[in-house]
Amino acid sequence: MPETIVDFSKLCVHTQTNKPWNLEECIRNYASAGIHALSIWRHLLEDLSFAEIRKLVADHHMDVVSLVRGGFFASTKKKTRDAALADNLLAIEQAAEIGAPLLVLVCGSDPAQSLELSRDQIREGISKILPVAREAGIKLAIEPLHPMYAADRSAICTMAQANQMAEQINDSSLGVAVDVFHLWWDPDLERELIRCGKNERLFAYHICDWNVPLKDLLNDRGLMGDGCIDLKQIRTWVEAAGFSGYREVEVFSD
Amino acid sequence: MPETIVDFSKLCVHTQTNKPWNLEECIRNYASAGIHALSIWRHLLEDLSFAEIRKLVADHHMDVVSLVRGGFFASTKKKTRDAALADNLLAIEQAAEIGAPLLVLVCGSDPAQSLELSRDQIREGISKILPVAREAGIKLAIEPLHPMYAADRSAICTMAQANQMAEQINDSSLGVAVDVFHLWWDPDLERELIRCGKNERLFAYHICDWNVPLKDLLNDRGLMGDGCIDLKQIRTWVEAAGFSGYREVEVFSD
Repeated sequence: MPETIVDFSKLCVHTQTNKPWNLEECIRNYASAGIHALSIWRHLLEDLSFAEIRKLVADHHMDVVSLVRGGFFASTKKKTRDAALADNLLAIEQAAEIGAPLLVLVCGSDPAQSLELSRDQIREGISKILPVAREAGIKLAIEPLHPMYAADRSAICTMAQANQMAEQINDSSLGVAVDVFHLWWDPDLERELIRCGKNERLFAYHICDWNVPLKDLLNDRGLMGDGCIDLKQIRTWVEAAGFSGYREVEVFSD
Repeated sequence: MPETIVDFSKLCVHTQTNKPWNLEECIRNYASAGIHALSIWRHLLEDLSFAEIRKLVADHHMDVVSLVRGGFFASTKKKTRDAALADNLLAIEQAAEIGAPLLVLVCGSDPAQSLELSRDQIREGISKILPVAREAGIKLAIEPLHPMYAADRSAICTMAQANQMAEQINDSSLGVAVDVFHLWWDPDLERELIRCGKNERLFAYHICDWNVPLKDLLNDRGLMGDGCIDLKQIRTWVEAAGFSGYREVEVFSD
């Protein structure tokens, strides 16, 4: 087991962890708590101009780790898939404007079609936006979600599936965002993290905890240490996979 | 795709699907609806003697498919593990008394320890009760549960894990109970069903549906056709795996 972390220079917080705050409050409050990195959820971009955001970020010596989130490529309706593509292109533009080097993708799923078909549409969607992302210098990260979201949020539920998708598309701008909440139960997690790291595709690492009992499918994430996830074990694997980036705290809860 | 089933002779209902009814009401109502097989949840055994149950079953030409459920082998506390063993031995005795050839196991998990350790305890627990089950002529079925129950209900979350556990213990009295609610999302499901069938370990097949959105982690199972599970596709795989037993409807919902 690794030592407990006492150096917080690699600590990043997702704005969604502090839902009541707007982006300016997040940046000011994180900075005054000694936290100098954040991942920004897109709806918070609405209140400020890009120039205002860049100034706030610079004035508070913040590092923008990622923009959250693009994706939702899967739908039985072509119109919806086209709208998703347009929205992803917008997200890439927003990421470039605010200096976020990474866009996290929640890939989507449509309960009215098979998971295989949803994955085909995800593959197609990512392939279409990748050239634009590459041109803009923005990386994309597939975030596999917990199987309890397979019906409507992500047809990609395991690290193995995310690795497979990234290897099929095979572009150095495409990688994987690992979130312990989604993946802690998977018996293949260690092996698949190593596979991901070996291919230099481990782009982001999100942490929180799994409350027992879990009271809500979406909004009952626990603070690290309050739940049952063996975070130190998973961190060991993530580090063994060669990851040395930010530890991103992403806890949303009612 | 297979044809829609019109022959209901292989239809079985779990008593928990009709929570308000006691065992006598279940048997009478199923029989009068032309359903002649049921799986009995253990708490319903409390109101009647074994002789009364056997008489009700015989009088209504019912086939008892399984007793639900044993298991919960994992705990940090030895006392709790010992109590679970005793309870499983009681369940085997009850199954024999009511003429149920199969005991379904929800294997358990303890959030205070690793999933690996929970699985070690499950393996040990099953190994201990197996000789008694064999002697009583009762088969045991590991039921892998959805990963959203990994923390506190089952450290066995996939068909691959259930197959692995059954193969490690390697006893003809031990197999797997497949429930579409738990396993529909798994990209390896077809392969693992075939592996299970090939080894003659596919002991039970439970059906329901996955509602979208799922409103409750435990009590929001859908009726077949109301959710997103491709039941015909999974049935094709189950049949290709050589299964010809009952289709057990297990829908519990508030």
